[in-house]
Amino acid sequence: MALPPLIADLRRRLGPKNVVHAPSELAVYDCDAFTVDRHRPDAVVFPHSTAQVVAAVETCSKHEVPIISRGSGTGLAGGCTPTKGGVVVMLTRMNHILELSLPDRLAVVEAGVPNIQLARHLAGTGYQYAPDPSSQGASTLGGNVATNAGGPHTLKDGVTVHHVLGIEAVLADGSILQVGPVEDPAVLDLQAVLCGSEGTLGIITKVWLRLTRAAENHRALRAAFTSVDDATATVSRIIAAGIIPAAMELMDRGILGAVEEAFHFGFPPDAGAILIIELDGPAVGLEEKQRQMVELCRSNGACEVLEAQTAKERETLWKCRKLSVGAVGRLSNSYMIQDGVVPRTRLPHILRRIAEIARHHQVRIVNVAHAGDGNVHPILLFDERDRDEVRRALAAGRELLDECIACGGSVTAEHGIGIEKIEFMERLFAPADLRAMRRLREAFDPHGRMNPGKLLPA
Amino acid sequence: MALPPLIADLRRRLGPKNVVHAPSELAVYDCDAFTVDRHRPDAVVFPHSTAQVVAAVETCSKHEVPIISRGSGTGLAGGCTPTKGGVVVMLTRMNHILELSLPDRLAVVEAGVPNIQLARHLAGTGYQYAPDPSSQGASTLGGNVATNAGGPHTLKDGVTVHHVLGIEAVLADGSILQVGPVEDPAVLDLQAVLCGSEGTLGIITKVWLRLTRAAENHRALRAAFTSVDDATATVSRIIAAGIIPAAMELMDRGILGAVEEAFHFGFPPDAGAILIIELDGPAVGLEEKQRQMVELCRSNGACEVLEAQTAKERETLWKCRKLSVGAVGRLSNSYMIQDGVVPRTRLPHILRRIAEIARHHQVRIVNVAHAGDGNVHPILLFDERDRDEVRRALAAGRELLDECIACGGSVTAEHGIGIEKIEFMERLFAPADLRAMRRLREAFDPHGRMNPGKLLPA
Repeated sequence: MALPPLIADLRRRLGPKNVVHAPSELAVYDCDAFTVDRHRPDAVVFPHSTAQVVAAVETCSKHEVPIISRGSGTGLAGGCTPTKGGVVVMLTRMNHILELSLPDRLAVVEAGVPNIQLARHLAGTGYQYAPDPSSQGASTLGGNVATNAGGPHTLKDGVTVHHVLGIEAVLADGSILQVGPVEDPAVLDLQAVLCGSEGTLGIITKVWLRLTRAAENHRALRAAFTSVDDATATVSRIIAAGIIPAAMELMDRGILGAVEEAFHFGFPPDAGAILIIELDGPAVGLEEKQRQMVELCRSNGACEVLEAQTAKERETLWKCRKLSVGAVGRLSNSYMIQDGVVPRTRLPHILRRIAEIARHHQVRIVNVAHAGDGNVHPILLFDERDRDEVRRALAAGRELLDECIACGGSVTAEHGIGIEKIEFMERLFAPADLRAMRRLREAFDPHGRMNPGKLLPA
Repeated sequence: MALPPLIADLRRRLGPKNVVHAPSELAVYDCDAFTVDRHRPDAVVFPHSTAQVVAAVETCSKHEVPIISRGSGTGLAGGCTPTKGGVVVMLTRMNHILELSLPDRLAVVEAGVPNIQLARHLAGTGYQYAPDPSSQGASTLGGNVATNAGGPHTLKDGVTVHHVLGIEAVLADGSILQVGPVEDPAVLDLQAVLCGSEGTLGIITKVWLRLTRAAENHRALRAAFTSVDDATATVSRIIAAGIIPAAMELMDRGILGAVEEAFHFGFPPDAGAILIIELDGPAVGLEEKQRQMVELCRSNGACEVLEAQTAKERETLWKCRKLSVGAVGRLSNSYMIQDGVVPRTRLPHILRRIAEIARHHQVRIVNVAHAGDGNVHPILLFDERDRDEVRRALAAGRELLDECIACGGSVTAEHGIGIEKIEFMERLFAPADLRAMRRLREAFDPHGRMNPGKLLPA
């Protein structure tokens, strides 16, 4: 049987080994970690070079089919789900660290390099690439840039865009765009637009990343509070006191119960919430900062403050946060991790509202949060076999995101829009704002072939 | 005599008091600090509100004339010169600080608020708006955003875009765009594109700015070196040692001579260059850092290191840098401050090349530099009555910017493109890059009326 012309052309341009089109193999690429919406692509290609990405773009253009870029598929919002079919471009074989220059504090990497690979490469040099999304072990640096990924250290270090010095991307017309790697030339900043564009403006093939000095010393502490309110108020007061911890994570009673049951960390039984706070910097100033931090926690109602005295104790403190999402499986067979952000001072309010919304929809919601930057991750628990429960969970999810918008926040801090959040865009942005974004997108992709159906409502 | 229809309409829409059209009054607006190219506008308007800016845009659209936004006119590249006539929109009467929230670390200001006004407002609160361009005393925050201004503290604190949380702008079609003020929603980042767009995408009317904690302690030192080479090598080594000073400024023998003659700071007579280095942070770590810094300067050939022991001494150290450009008037009746940037490790090379270029073109060039971020400001001296000298100065300026490009740098770090640097864009960016920027610009301004002739070559 003759191959469809699209497949034949892809095989001719990229080599047969680099093209997958058997239906059974395509199933793997029908969604990312947003598993409730699946669509199979027509083909998946595995380019080894920017030139091969150009070939894929040109072939899709010729056959007038969508082209969707994908890294490790760890996204939570369906950003790389091929909702309209077409060709998925897997960037995972473009996985070379091309250059490391510590004097210039620069790393040049292909888009498919996993974040952890760069971290391991830098271990022991005294330098780091700061953004460490929770998916770090799998997610690619190109994917981190395309979604402008955050993570627990966003509070101190910012998100991905703050650490990108340059981007190479293949545009819809097959041309290769290079912006940077010089910092901040005062011209139209295509770099920041590409960060977080989720493959709608171009396929990112190479990135120049800023390296920063790794902190020499860390201090971590765990503060338990009887109420979530006390914990969130403490977060506000710490920031207002002018201390920016490296990270400040919150877990509420619901998630603590699951973690305690699974791993026995010994949380105080009456803890309504805990904060895990990490400080870093030069040794001399740290002791004093830590003392202040403990003081602030206690004066705001902490019923227990545990200070890690050793690196091992610090690791244990972090473990209870890092294992928390895994522990949710003990509570429910299905769950949905939401991603909302509010101004820090609205944290107490949003967590109270989440509790009300949970009661109102009769949905169990437990909370983890990158509290320091106002980024909440309510986890909605449901049984996917119970249609009414699924409906109630989805309704509760929508309502809590609406509440984030009402607080002057947003429906995504770090997971992106993808297909999951697209319905919120019209509530989040005024018509003039969406029009400007649409015009920008059309300027890059006049035929609407780069990851169509994502990011902006039709 | 009846007024021209454009003027009549502007007076009707904005009020007669807010429209200037007498030729004698228009002369003031025929250039910014790039004085070698002057063009008179047809009218100048002084809106007091975003609604009045909309009225100005709509009127210009109706009459099909260019519209050029302007703050205090301190730009060095002709960014607000009305090269094709049209209407200049002066934003200096939109000068209200609308909101200050220290807990949210946020300031909301109208575009015409001078940078210094916000700085004075924040004095004593423990917070600051970090970007402090040298023009700070006059330049407006809207202008700082439109040019993505830098300054001496760029090294540690980044440029304007790193401190902008939201922007309101009036677009070419009269619609009001608001991006932000929530940090980093993962969507198309129009904010960063507007920063540095020099009025070509829209007229910035209001900005939300990030406040940061002001450093509690400062240390400053002045290190003199017999050669520029030793000074630039020291800069590289300080950064490589993992110390990021708050600022690290370089002055060469040429500028030192002028400053010494005018103000008698007592530089060592054999100094080929000096570095002014500022450190800030918590008191406890500072002593040690300063000791390390002095050690690094000495081991890299410093012939004198002067440490400021008091706030007054620190002020004196800075004074010699701040007065330097003013002192240039003693050397020459005309001069041109160039603005180039190179990777830090190329600093020794670029300063050697600048000296060669000066010799080759028989032009006197003296240097100041934000050395820590590779930003050189060679000052070319000439007599504007001597045509051959002017020609040679312009040729030398072009050659040294070419050299910055050849080093992997750029022709502007902080002064923008305007009209002055437009000819370099084709050397700086590949055709695909310029095409993408042009498409983006056309998406915002299809009729080419927002500050035409700037930023991108035709």
